[in-house]
Amino acid sequence: MPQQWLPPIYWDGDAVAILDQRLLPQREAVIRCTSPKQVVAAIKNMAIRGAPAVGVAGAMALALGAVLIQAADARTFKSKFARLCRQVRTARPTGRNLGWAVDRIHALVEGNRDADVPRLHELIRREADLILAEDVAGNVAIGSWGKTVIPRGAGIMTYCNAGALATADYGTAVGVIRAAFDADPGIRVFSCETRPFLQGARLTVYELMKAGIPVTLITDNSIGSLMSRGMIDVVVVGADRIAANGDTANKIGTYMAAVLACTHGIPFYVAAPRSTIDASLPDGDGIPIEQRAPKEVTHFNGRRVAPQGAAALNAAFDVTPNKYITGIITEVGILSKPFGRAIRQALKA
Amino acid sequence: MPQQWLPPIYWDGDAVAILDQRLLPQREAVIRCTSPKQVVAAIKNMAIRGAPAVGVAGAMALALGAVLIQAADARTFKSKFARLCRQVRTARPTGRNLGWAVDRIHALVEGNRDADVPRLHELIRREADLILAEDVAGNVAIGSWGKTVIPRGAGIMTYCNAGALATADYGTAVGVIRAAFDADPGIRVFSCETRPFLQGARLTVYELMKAGIPVTLITDNSIGSLMSRGMIDVVVVGADRIAANGDTANKIGTYMAAVLACTHGIPFYVAAPRSTIDASLPDGDGIPIEQRAPKEVTHFNGRRVAPQGAAALNAAFDVTPNKYITGIITEVGILSKPFGRAIRQALKA
Repeated sequence: MPQQWLPPIYWDGDAVAILDQRLLPQREAVIRCTSPKQVVAAIKNMAIRGAPAVGVAGAMALALGAVLIQAADARTFKSKFARLCRQVRTARPTGRNLGWAVDRIHALVEGNRDADVPRLHELIRREADLILAEDVAGNVAIGSWGKTVIPRGAGIMTYCNAGALATADYGTAVGVIRAAFDADPGIRVFSCETRPFLQGARLTVYELMKAGIPVTLITDNSIGSLMSRGMIDVVVVGADRIAANGDTANKIGTYMAAVLACTHGIPFYVAAPRSTIDASLPDGDGIPIEQRAPKEVTHFNGRRVAPQGAAALNAAFDVTPNKYITGIITEVGILSKPFGRAIRQALKA
Repeated sequence: MPQQWLPPIYWDGDAVAILDQRLLPQREAVIRCTSPKQVVAAIKNMAIRGAPAVGVAGAMALALGAVLIQAADARTFKSKFARLCRQVRTARPTGRNLGWAVDRIHALVEGNRDADVPRLHELIRREADLILAEDVAGNVAIGSWGKTVIPRGAGIMTYCNAGALATADYGTAVGVIRAAFDADPGIRVFSCETRPFLQGARLTVYELMKAGIPVTLITDNSIGSLMSRGMIDVVVVGADRIAANGDTANKIGTYMAAVLACTHGIPFYVAAPRSTIDASLPDGDGIPIEQRAPKEVTHFNGRRVAPQGAAALNAAFDVTPNKYITGIITEVGILSKPFGRAIRQALKA
């Protein structure tokens, strides 16, 4: 049965409210941010995560910060606002949507020669609200397109959390699952737990259970086994940054899942809004991959699991070459190979 | 620098001492078993694990139980001993070595028509000691053969724990790593953490650090990423049961690692003593796969990670088809394709 739902980020009066995803599913607690610095901290420590959600958070951080800037005239304001944009833009490196959202608002401010400071405040806040609203609407459109590739009664595998919690609401890959479930309650979902942060175990399972959609948790290392036994009919994942040729950076392990899908002849879809596309990168080689603290791997909830002093690697993302991707589900349609051309057309649409 | 080392199972006077691997690496605590029931419990709850170690534990459980049997004559003894064999044999289903060890001792007892009860006690204990000693010697031989396939300065990936802790001592896949390191201190090891029980993070890293061998812990979902970046030159894993055609059951995720190795053109070796081979099974389809409690996936150290009531799958093993295996490293040499013939010859050697 569907349950009450709190979105991952929303305005609470003049503050930005962020659902602390580090505590889910055990506890639903909200961080009330009254400064852009607090929003940036919440992005860095992953209280909020997921490329589109981080993009929305960045936009809201700018709206929050704009009204705090001390400036007698528009010129001073713009100079200080540019500095704020740089601070927010670099909170996390791999996801494209943060840079996209910051650049969009920054360009709006820079391009406006007539507005005074109060008017700029208004424009920034309106643009941030628009980015949030567009994200939700885009995800519903992604779901609507995406459900058409889900076979009847399918076993759908998803990875990490590309859900409502990774966006402004509804989700990208999980949006496809929501739309598919509305059309066919016979689908089943397999959610990979997604080490080390366990976004799948903690967040995707939480979301899908709240929505009343049947979901089974699996370890990341059982993907191959399930595929070989015919339990997975289609894979849908999200994306953090998509290069101009369709190469896609997403949570570490996505590449592995894509190779396994290919080996087993299973369609592999990426679901993402166009704001995830980085047309400046010809291919995935140029995508910056965030390296996080080894402690996220060696420790669990602050408790050490590996031997003291153990070395560990913790790349947060990997890149899936376009050849492993069946289609990219966007808000303007499903892009097919060759992705270079399809992406150029989608960005013009 | 190499450190002091406690083997996973040994005689402590008349008791069987088992290092409780559930507590490693945080704590080195020994369970002192004075009845076969306690040994069986330690196998079931994974205080001791790893197919060869479980085989040795089964043999020692029989030696422990034999002297506790109340029997006035050899015939009564044999009947009661047969029942004990059945109880020990079924402690865990997938690993071959337990059945192999129990059958070997049972056949010895059944085949002996002259011995009285004290003599049977003696024969059983001697055979159990022989099984333990042969396992250690076999692993050293496996290491000696296996090191010949490790390139100079190689990045070696191993999965789960096929180490000293999974055997009587020295290890199978880790035995190959030990021997390779003795010959070339320039090798580097990547140990996959191996969810949900984290044998890689907890046990393999512990063993290798104790041996002074450079090791880096990685999440299971980063195997593909590391391989695509050229960091892995060879994969060596253990085995729980090998069918007559070379199909190999091992810890869940081994199949995934093998597919990824194949995709990246990386040699994939299985290291196991011949006692792991089940010649009665033509291929991997007949290997029983143990399903363990979902709680091992949804909880961590007794603390719930996934939402309350979340469904989860927890198959403990998967089967890697022989086509993905480059060679099987045994104590009598490295078996190559076609494995059917090579295995038949090895079993005769």
